[in-house]
Amino acid sequence: MPIQENDYVLILAPDDKTFLSQVSSEKKLSTHLGMLNIADVIGKNYGDKIVSGLGNEFYLLEPTTWDKMMKIKRLTQIIYPKDASIIIQKTGLGEGMRVVETGTGSGSMTIALANAVKPGGKVYTYEKRDQFRENAMKNLQTAGLSEYVEFNAGDAREGFLQTDVDVALIDLPSPWDGVPAAAKALKGGGRIASLSPTFNQVEENYKHLEEHGFIYLETVEVLVRNILVREGKTRPTQRMISHTGYLTFGRKINK
Amino acid sequence: MPIQENDYVLILAPDDKTFLSQVSSEKKLSTHLGMLNIADVIGKNYGDKIVSGLGNEFYLLEPTTWDKMMKIKRLTQIIYPKDASIIIQKTGLGEGMRVVETGTGSGSMTIALANAVKPGGKVYTYEKRDQFRENAMKNLQTAGLSEYVEFNAGDAREGFLQTDVDVALIDLPSPWDGVPAAAKALKGGGRIASLSPTFNQVEENYKHLEEHGFIYLETVEVLVRNILVREGKTRPTQRMISHTGYLTFGRKINK
Amino acid sequence: MPIQENDYVLILAPDDKTFLSQVSSEKKLSTHLGMLNIADVIGKNYGDKIVSGLGNEFYLLEPTTWDKMMKIKRLTQIIYPKDASIIIQKTGLGEGMRVVETGTGSGSMTIALANAVKPGGKVYTYEKRDQFRENAMKNLQTAGLSEYVEFNAGDAREGFLQTDVDVALIDLPSPWDGVPAAAKALKGGGRIASLSPTFNQVEENYKHLEEHGFIYLETVEVLVRNILVREGKTRPTQRMISHTGYLTFGRKINK
Amino acid sequence: MPIQENDYVLILAPDDKTFLSQVSSEKKLSTHLGMLNIADVIGKNYGDKIVSGLGNEFYLLEPTTWDKMMKIKRLTQIIYPKDASIIIQKTGLGEGMRVVETGTGSGSMTIALANAVKPGGKVYTYEKRDQFRENAMKNLQTAGLSEYVEFNAGDAREGFLQTDVDVALIDLPSPWDGVPAAAKALKGGGRIASLSPTFNQVEENYKHLEEHGFIYLETVEVLVRNILVREGKTRPTQRMISHTGYLTFGRKINK
Repeated sequence: MPIQENDYVLILAPDDKTFLSQVSSEKKLSTHLGMLNIADVIGKNYGDKIVSGLGNEFYLLEPTTWDKMMKIKRLTQIIYPKDASIIIQKTGLGEGMRVVETGTGSGSMTIALANAVKPGGKVYTYEKRDQFRENAMKNLQTAGLSEYVEFNAGDAREGFLQTDVDVALIDLPSPWDGVPAAAKALKGGGRIASLSPTFNQVEENYKHLEEHGFIYLETVEVLVRNILVREGKTRPTQRMISHTGYLTFGRKINK
Repeated sequence: MPIQENDYVLILAPDDKTFLSQVSSEKKLSTHLGMLNIADVIGKNYGDKIVSGLGNEFYLLEPTTWDKMMKIKRLTQIIYPKDASIIIQKTGLGEGMRVVETGTGSGSMTIALANAVKPGGKVYTYEKRDQFRENAMKNLQTAGLSEYVEFNAGDAREGFLQTDVDVALIDLPSPWDGVPAAAKALKGGGRIASLSPTFNQVEENYKHLEEHGFIYLETVEVLVRNILVREGKTRPTQRMISHTGYLTFGRKINK
Repeated sequence: MPIQENDYVLILAPDDKTFLSQVSSEKKLSTHLGMLNIADVIGKNYGDKIVSGLGNEFYLLEPTTWDKMMKIKRLTQIIYPKDASIIIQKTGLGEGMRVVETGTGSGSMTIALANAVKPGGKVYTYEKRDQFRENAMKNLQTAGLSEYVEFNAGDAREGFLQTDVDVALIDLPSPWDGVPAAAKALKGGGRIASLSPTFNQVEENYKHLEEHGFIYLETVEVLVRNILVREGKTRPTQRMISHTGYLTFGRKINK
Repeated sequence: MPIQENDYVLILAPDDKTFLSQVSSEKKLSTHLGMLNIADVIGKNYGDKIVSGLGNEFYLLEPTTWDKMMKIKRLTQIIYPKDASIIIQKTGLGEGMRVVETGTGSGSMTIALANAVKPGGKVYTYEKRDQFRENAMKNLQTAGLSEYVEFNAGDAREGFLQTDVDVALIDLPSPWDGVPAAAKALKGGGRIASLSPTFNQVEENYKHLEEHGFIYLETVEVLVRNILVREGKTRPTQRMISHTGYLTFGRKINK
């Protein structure tokens, strides 16, 4: 189906730089390799190319969840796609599930969660800081996933409105602030996941998880190393991100 | 909803050993911590516990995709959940998408793919060795995901029957054997992913990917380190899996 | 110079298994690939081979410090050569320097220290448990480095007998127990190194290091990944040691 | 012994920035935290402090080998101390040994080698590019290790002048160019070490090593991760060097 007005497109420059853009017949996109006339995109298909004012070819790609997460407007630290990937598989998310998340932050994880449960499921995300919540709402709109997300201004320490949810994702500076609320919201056998930058936070969190009926606790760190592939000279890149946070998982039992 | 006959349950022993079992009123499960009467499970809820003949408590958990992948009967090397997680996010899989996969192997990746696209999508998986295909079919049944998978005995070198698919996953000893077929099956902007244990295979694969209209090529390795959490003594585990394979990603353009 | 009675030799089997043996005309060495007559070694040179009773060829190699460290009789956990290597360079050890070490443990680190400062320097090593100290003394003898080491039965908490030493190495369960003694023993600008398996110990140690006049504190972890090299199929090994301990370094100022 | 004219001193700023300086009564050192009068250093001891024109305290430290390696003037890529540390232990270097090295590059590895074999041993280092050799000579002088190094303008492909050496270190773009020369220069049981950024180079090197009588071949990669230690908030740094090169080791047999 050809690309239409209001669709989102990931535009790939010849040097592998990318631009996430909403299609509009009025729009022009200024790049380091020339001006792009976004009207040219309309009627093309993903996989086609357009040419910049400077004569460079740009390809039109369908944005993936990973692309969308990396392109959001960030007002906070985000959960990186590498960590989000492991969280989604480890908690067993799938279409139709219901998830609570706190805090929303800039919404990068919310995008991954919404993509995993859509269209039958729902993400209930809590962010008490108005500025962040409003930014995240816009980011979810850009990602085309707003309808699967319910935004809430409440504080996790006061509990979630939902019950019987499948998964709870806690991304708070003190993740244990969200543990009692998660324990109430989750169904039996439901999964909790949280992310903390230090071991001390992980240890503190374990105490609260154990108190609130979580078992089968596991913690991992995820490292992704980029490989520079060149004929006969392939090697890892010389620098990498060596730390984001430790991921902790548990399952809710019925006491 | 209470657990019924034929449901699947992940049974957690007090020492965190797990058993994936289909519920049947006749079944007994012999464990290192006593005999379990599977009839006891019927009518309980996920999160409840049962007691073994030796008096030990076992918890009843809902199996996640990750659990299912690790519990399949293996006749081949499998794609590990850590790699599957990154593949699914990086290729942007979601409900309703259509994926081709070759080869099926033992079906661990097929489980992850089916879970990502269900219920509206479909995985078309190719495995020419009958013994492996039949084992994988049983594994998908155990995972409760058979209806989202179409098994095929064809060889990827002879092409796929599908066109306009969103994602192609190539897990062959020589991944380039599947590249021409993937290029024909994928829609414009569709994503390809493959896994190879060596750099030489990655390099060879790049040549074929470039020839067949794939761009934005990326290769990564994923390392997951387990953390042993104990009050005041948290540290990484002393041994880890340090290599499975390199993951390569690309996107299809229209030539 | 040909190998003589009482020399040490590293004997390499065809499958890369190694045996560290002291040469004696009476000795026989039973291996998985046949019996070796150690008398055959006398008069040969390093790099020569001998043949086992089963007709297999074994090579005679000069033991390196690394070999010696890995071949000691272990009654305790040892500091691994990967960590010892970094400690020796980071503390700037060289011929003629004087080092205090506590505790000796099985003496693997003592071997590395003695090799670094010999012949003009000295390692003063403290181990209060008689059984460990006696084992370490034998290990140092096997390594041919006894004359550069002074063994001491004292407890680090009661102080070291030496002053004006260049480097202090603390390998205690609570490394801060050795910090006051190290601060007194070290000359101005002297280096301290310690190894701890957990972050909490590192943090506690920092408090004591700062209190006792240590500055320029640094902590690292060292990971060594083995590569399996085979024509066209080179890849990392599938498992690795992912944690031994965190290394902490500091320098002594004059207060 | 107090610091004298012409001694080297590592000067540590309050923010852990360091300056390696040769003492001279005339010299002034301009820093981001004020001007230092180097004449003030004379007569002080390592571990003492001096005060800058802006009133900041700087500590006087004894430079370690690691410090010296990092502070050389670089005209080429250098072998990093993390890799040098492993090379020195793995090849069993110690006082009195004789080593050949090619190419010298900027001399960072030469510093580590000279420190390991001094005073009775010698490093014979080969660098055919005059500009690099002259820079390395100055760097060795700054490190105070010139007298243990013999510089040579020859090309490794034409052989080394030395025989019966203990260790050969090959740091060439095509390390196999140095293998035949190393095989001739090494004594039986002698150790070779080389560093290559890619697997393909490692594989090619293995062929030449095997042809020239090297056995017990091993390849490793060394990763050092810095830990940011802060009370209750300790964590790895967020970025790290993820690749320098693969280290290959072997031992020479007598054919």
